[in-house]
Amino acid sequence: MILDDLDIPIVLAPLAGGPATVELARAVSEAGGLGFLAAGYRTAADMAEQVRSFRAVSRRPFGVNVFTPPPAAADPQSYAPYVERLGEEATRAGVPLGEPRCDDDDWDAKLDALAELAVPVVSFVFGCPPAGVVARLRASGIAVWITITTPAEAGQALAAGADALVVQGYEAGGHRASFAGEEAPYGLLALLQLLDAQQRAPLVAAGGLASGRGIAGALAAGARAAQVGTAFLRCPEAGTAEVHRAALAEPAPTAITRAFTGKPARGIVNRFMREHGDAAPAAYPEIHHVTAPLRQAGRRRGDANVVNLWAGQTHELAAAQPAAAVARRLAGEARDALRRASGRAV
Amino acid sequence: MILDDLDIPIVLAPLAGGPATVELARAVSEAGGLGFLAAGYRTAADMAEQVRSFRAVSRRPFGVNVFTPPPAAADPQSYAPYVERLGEEATRAGVPLGEPRCDDDDWDAKLDALAELAVPVVSFVFGCPPAGVVARLRASGIAVWITITTPAEAGQALAAGADALVVQGYEAGGHRASFAGEEAPYGLLALLQLLDAQQRAPLVAAGGLASGRGIAGALAAGARAAQVGTAFLRCPEAGTAEVHRAALAEPAPTAITRAFTGKPARGIVNRFMREHGDAAPAAYPEIHHVTAPLRQAGRRRGDANVVNLWAGQTHELAAAQPAAAVARRLAGEARDALRRASGRAV
Repeated sequence: MILDDLDIPIVLAPLAGGPATVELARAVSEAGGLGFLAAGYRTAADMAEQVRSFRAVSRRPFGVNVFTPPPAAADPQSYAPYVERLGEEATRAGVPLGEPRCDDDDWDAKLDALAELAVPVVSFVFGCPPAGVVARLRASGIAVWITITTPAEAGQALAAGADALVVQGYEAGGHRASFAGEEAPYGLLALLQLLDAQQRAPLVAAGGLASGRGIAGALAAGARAAQVGTAFLRCPEAGTAEVHRAALAEPAPTAITRAFTGKPARGIVNRFMREHGDAAPAAYPEIHHVTAPLRQAGRRRGDANVVNLWAGQTHELAAAQPAAAVARRLAGEARDALRRASGRAV
Repeated sequence: MILDDLDIPIVLAPLAGGPATVELARAVSEAGGLGFLAAGYRTAADMAEQVRSFRAVSRRPFGVNVFTPPPAAADPQSYAPYVERLGEEATRAGVPLGEPRCDDDDWDAKLDALAELAVPVVSFVFGCPPAGVVARLRASGIAVWITITTPAEAGQALAAGADALVVQGYEAGGHRASFAGEEAPYGLLALLQLLDAQQRAPLVAAGGLASGRGIAGALAAGARAAQVGTAFLRCPEAGTAEVHRAALAEPAPTAITRAFTGKPARGIVNRFMREHGDAAPAAYPEIHHVTAPLRQAGRRRGDANVVNLWAGQTHELAAAQPAAAVARRLAGEARDALRRASGRAV
């Protein structure tokens, strides 16, 4: 089990859509954690190229994160009014909206490539892969992790054969990984407690863990490692846009919204979220494709009001430091926090 | 500092509105934690009588929780449509609605009585008491705790002179304690991390802590103690209604709603919440008084669909055991969880 062999209990969150780089994954793996490459929004060929690039610079273990495709395309009538509403944004930004389309993010080709590449870990978000997919990857020596947000999803993931569960709390930045309906998201500490009884697979805690104390809290609550994303977004190795880096550094409220992609995701509250959040339909990846040009233009212009500023609830704790330094500092602080609390509790 | 002298790092949540009893507070204090009496919804005379009753059966420290009054009454126009909407519920239940009225829950008389009784701890929810009130209580030898839900509220509470902060996460059952506006509630682990830099006063963590692992997580994240509510609701010493006890025992989603009282509060999702939640105004305690007869009738009839089933996100972990056994078990499990995580992190 790869989690037993890590020097520090820190897993890099996938950070698809820009921030994820080979350099960032390498830095976390070389620091003794587990780096992750993001297959999401890339072709299978790009993903394979990233894996080869990682292996050219590190012999440490790493993982690849894959988006499980949606069960079905959204009904065009469900999102047509929203697309129309966004027309004014497009005019204002001087770019055309993207085409709403449903795709599977090159699912079959990615699975083929991952099996052939025999990467150490593959984690899934947005859905529970079929048991056959899990079995095939495991037959190639791959550890399969599935991201869950409720006890019911944990049960499904274990039934599908997951080797470990990534447990995503309400605090997490970026997309909700939920797939079995999430009437009311669970806070991370609550969700970890509810999974105690099901510890047939190790738990990797995710959501707002950006300090050693936070990581210590997740470990004390039963997690074997912490998946850390936002705390690495300001590292020089990350591909984070400048406008996003600047926003992360300041205290500011975050909220969960479908405004940018048609799937609930947590980001720093900005004009786009406030104006469109209530109107946004459940239509992923259709709305992701529609708003992509707007967001790209916003990043180029440095306009924080139209960019998806994905961030966990503790984003202001993210430091502009090299990733290895962040990883080692967090691990050291977590160890100290556990020792302090344990000493007090004797 | 009273938190240093507890044998176990467990503080009883106030549980106003039925569950709180002298017997429950006594059991937790005698087990080595800190029992709490709920002044909310009682007269000052009732509160004083409870304090005397507690002192007649225990020499251990305890606290009294007080509702800080709302800054102003709600505009009747803001809640009139909601009251009209609830008319059908009243007809169905065969009871009249209560009168919408704003009151201060006997604030001045309670402060007088508490200063005179010189109780060990007074905690506040729903607002930050003025610095003069804090100073007066402290001059009587009382430790003053203020409940907060955001870093900004923590700053206000410290400025008012709080001796300790009760840090309420999003996971918590019952009313949100927030007073400075809560655009998006913080998960407990996130909020504890954001308060790290402000540790001028010890933190008591609250919200969904119903297992030793959860409590260990809060302690590792920097809290000095855990405030536990839902996990005590099924104890024989608690005054919890039967219909509420039964609902707590089963896994079921919870959500935050204003439907019952006009103030956001977390409870198990039921028909009343689903049907009226979206329409409910911000008008506390006006709506509390309006729905009180409905809820009382529901408790009498055992109708889970109209009762406010306050519950934290981990309510199914609450055990039907004597409170001292619950407190000791949670503390022991928390110690074990900290030792385990600390051992692994060496």
